[in-house]
Amino acid sequence: MAKDKKLVEAITSMDTDFAQWYTDVVKKAELIDYTSVKGCMVIKPAGYAIWENIQKELDARFKATGVENVYLPMFIPESLLQKEKDHVEGFAPEVAWVTHGGLEPLQERMCVRPTSETLFCDFYAKEVQSYRDLPKVYNQWCSVVRWEKTTRPFLRSREFLWQEGHTAHATAEEAQERTIQMLNVYADFCEEVLAIPVIKGRKTDKEKFAGAEATYTIESLMHDGKALQSGTSHNFGDGFAKAFEIQYTDRDNRLQYVHQTSWGMTTRMIGAIIMVHGDDSGLVLPPRIAPVQVMVIPIAQHKEGVLDKAYAIREELLKAGFRVKADDSDKSPGWKFSEQEMKGIPVRIEIGPKDIEAGQAVIVRRDNREKTIVSLDELAGKLAEVLDTMQKEMLERARAHRDAHTYDVTDYGEFVKTLEEKPGFVRAMWCGDQACEDKIKEETAATSRCMPFEQEKLSDTCVCCGRPAKAMVYWGKAY
Amino acid sequence: MAKDKKLVEAITSMDTDFAQWYTDVVKKAELIDYTSVKGCMVIKPAGYAIWENIQKELDARFKATGVENVYLPMFIPESLLQKEKDHVEGFAPEVAWVTHGGLEPLQERMCVRPTSETLFCDFYAKEVQSYRDLPKVYNQWCSVVRWEKTTRPFLRSREFLWQEGHTAHATAEEAQERTIQMLNVYADFCEEVLAIPVIKGRKTDKEKFAGAEATYTIESLMHDGKALQSGTSHNFGDGFAKAFEIQYTDRDNRLQYVHQTSWGMTTRMIGAIIMVHGDDSGLVLPPRIAPVQVMVIPIAQHKEGVLDKAYAIREELLKAGFRVKADDSDKSPGWKFSEQEMKGIPVRIEIGPKDIEAGQAVIVRRDNREKTIVSLDELAGKLAEVLDTMQKEMLERARAHRDAHTYDVTDYGEFVKTLEEKPGFVRAMWCGDQACEDKIKEETAATSRCMPFEQEKLSDTCVCCGRPAKAMVYWGKAY
Repeated sequence: MAKDKKLVEAITSMDTDFAQWYTDVVKKAELIDYTSVKGCMVIKPAGYAIWENIQKELDARFKATGVENVYLPMFIPESLLQKEKDHVEGFAPEVAWVTHGGLEPLQERMCVRPTSETLFCDFYAKEVQSYRDLPKVYNQWCSVVRWEKTTRPFLRSREFLWQEGHTAHATAEEAQERTIQMLNVYADFCEEVLAIPVIKGRKTDKEKFAGAEATYTIESLMHDGKALQSGTSHNFGDGFAKAFEIQYTDRDNRLQYVHQTSWGMTTRMIGAIIMVHGDDSGLVLPPRIAPVQVMVIPIAQHKEGVLDKAYAIREELLKAGFRVKADDSDKSPGWKFSEQEMKGIPVRIEIGPKDIEAGQAVIVRRDNREKTIVSLDELAGKLAEVLDTMQKEMLERARAHRDAHTYDVTDYGEFVKTLEEKPGFVRAMWCGDQACEDKIKEETAATSRCMPFEQEKLSDTCVCCGRPAKAMVYWGKAY
Repeated sequence: MAKDKKLVEAITSMDTDFAQWYTDVVKKAELIDYTSVKGCMVIKPAGYAIWENIQKELDARFKATGVENVYLPMFIPESLLQKEKDHVEGFAPEVAWVTHGGLEPLQERMCVRPTSETLFCDFYAKEVQSYRDLPKVYNQWCSVVRWEKTTRPFLRSREFLWQEGHTAHATAEEAQERTIQMLNVYADFCEEVLAIPVIKGRKTDKEKFAGAEATYTIESLMHDGKALQSGTSHNFGDGFAKAFEIQYTDRDNRLQYVHQTSWGMTTRMIGAIIMVHGDDSGLVLPPRIAPVQVMVIPIAQHKEGVLDKAYAIREELLKAGFRVKADDSDKSPGWKFSEQEMKGIPVRIEIGPKDIEAGQAVIVRRDNREKTIVSLDELAGKLAEVLDTMQKEMLERARAHRDAHTYDVTDYGEFVKTLEEKPGFVRAMWCGDQACEDKIKEETAATSRCMPFEQEKLSDTCVCCGRPAKAMVYWGKAY
């Protein structure tokens, strides 16, 4: 038992130091390792398997809406990056520059893509000639680089993995439709698969993407009350099209600019899973995204028939379509429980001599430790129910936590006090002026997260300046 | 018909100019597009979908042997690259160097990975402590950069996609076993899925990977008689382990070095598919790798019921598990046939008013244009047979072509003449001395492709110097 304790005690408690707890989980659940390049990490098998499941789920949802995958180069010549003014201003300060190829200096330096709008525009300018060539609905899975000063595993790393969708349409309406369609794909994926509830809304001009006409976002709340931007979808209008001369001839033989969108989701969602669902025993993975859903743990495995029964259960459940492993190592059951909990495996099945005699097994949920004694005849069916219930309850619990940490405020003094004392979202009215956003950020460190699609009128005036209000905004401190 | 002709005539004939034919197919089958960075290409949907199928097939085969996927950074600090002497000499001349992060120069420049041995070694040095930590059998899917002077789509590009497996083992035997196991995975994949026959063998020291103890390869022959190295698997022994100090304590508590392997396959296999199976009408995709296996093409689609029947056939075949599309565009059937052929879709199903009346459809194979008239009741079953037969015959045809272009030679004059006049593999004996390889390369431009596992004794002496022979070697001009 000393060993078991050691494993558990090695994690800092969430309430003591949330940042340290996060780092501990990331390491102890074997999701990542640090490398000799600051801000670049190794994503280890347990972490990468989560990303593979995210890819599989998202990719299928994308393809169901007509998305096709492509791959564009990782290098952007400096002159190409500079074609759209706002875009280059937004990204140039944080790109990595390649200056030499082999032993020779390059004629023009190139950056490693921080995002690929400019490359897609260059590509579309050649590909799109006629209305028959539209729409283009392309996506790529790749890594991108942003030379950030402060880095944290998954949440903010200098290189990260993501997908970036880039589309070109004949009309503004179609571009807007696609922008919202993809935001909805992200929102549904987060809620249905990751059990993370999200607020859908639009970013203010201050917070929108460099070069976009409008940025839409899904915002989620972490356990510590900080917000996380979880996916964005941008409508570019024809701004990039004009900068890159992406034109097509319409049915009436007139030259028109295309209307574009882009949308992305990244490995930071693994950070979100950790911070929304984790607890002081480690990671808790929602069943639908967990690479291993069930760990079969034999009790008193030296006794005759126990290991065989554990293997038989594993085989039966694999056949039934669950992702299952059995822990037949020479560690103690208590140690195995701790490991299964640390790694966030949604349920364990305990099976010992007495269980076998009684023709039963014990299913233990990772999230609330609820035990269910199940007849071995009904194991697969009951397991499906337990995982299903767990998935639903994890979403409900996260939603309840978010709602309990969302505050409506109309008075500026209370606004500042709430942001200082109560971690969470603050909903308040805003006049639409960036000066108020700047003031709020300076005085509270909070930013406008979004103007939610579901608007409410909390009062007539801006919480900050008292002038007439234009929109209700979610405010919060963010990762 | 004028339009149909134009589409077909746009390809150069293979016999006229194979290199130009290749470039034409790559463009006209819409696999890639060029970009403003020389040697970097856009892989378009039709090309990327082939890569996705390659990934899916290979990844499943890897995982069945216990491989786990990970992701390591794309940057390698210069000091890390330099740790293994042979390795840095092999790669330093062709890497891209990052010198600035954001607005500031880096303290130490980094290269974009040309391959990740050094990163995996750095990682394993921390991860591996005890025999309990072994083996490590990791793989990553990513892009790598090699700043080549001469580039060609898929075959040699400055950035390309691949997978790289990197393993660490307790013993030399286990490392050697894994090296050969993965070579066999590649060989089986090429023959079973890509219908490309391969020669398995070992590289000479001159041709082996920078830093490897032994490199194993699968070599295939393109339609023009040039060889293509199609996959390699390296045994590093403990060379990298010593350079990077990757040590573990064994069961007897003694410190030991690990033994390592690495193995990779790349997007150049798309080039191999084109050059092994393509013809003067364009691409020909083996059914098992084709993103679209069947194109349903309605004849006289303006007549009542024709389009509906085409859609019904598509739905039926989709349900039966085939990858199917129907071409309901307003182009002529002849134009649609040309397009389907250019894109290499394995079969088309022609369905017109007379077919419907007779309760039948026509299946046309892409590779040999063979037509089969099939009763609509038996369509799915017959289609499966046709695709199956086509897959097998494509492999057989490629094997027959390779065998017909493989020459056994014992005399040096004949050796030089054969390499000059007859494109293909030349099998000849070799003394084991690199001087003979150098001479042969200088005088014929051919290189030793491999020492095949299946050795034959063609004569007692080296074809080049006349000294006693040590091995039979496949020689050839290569991509």
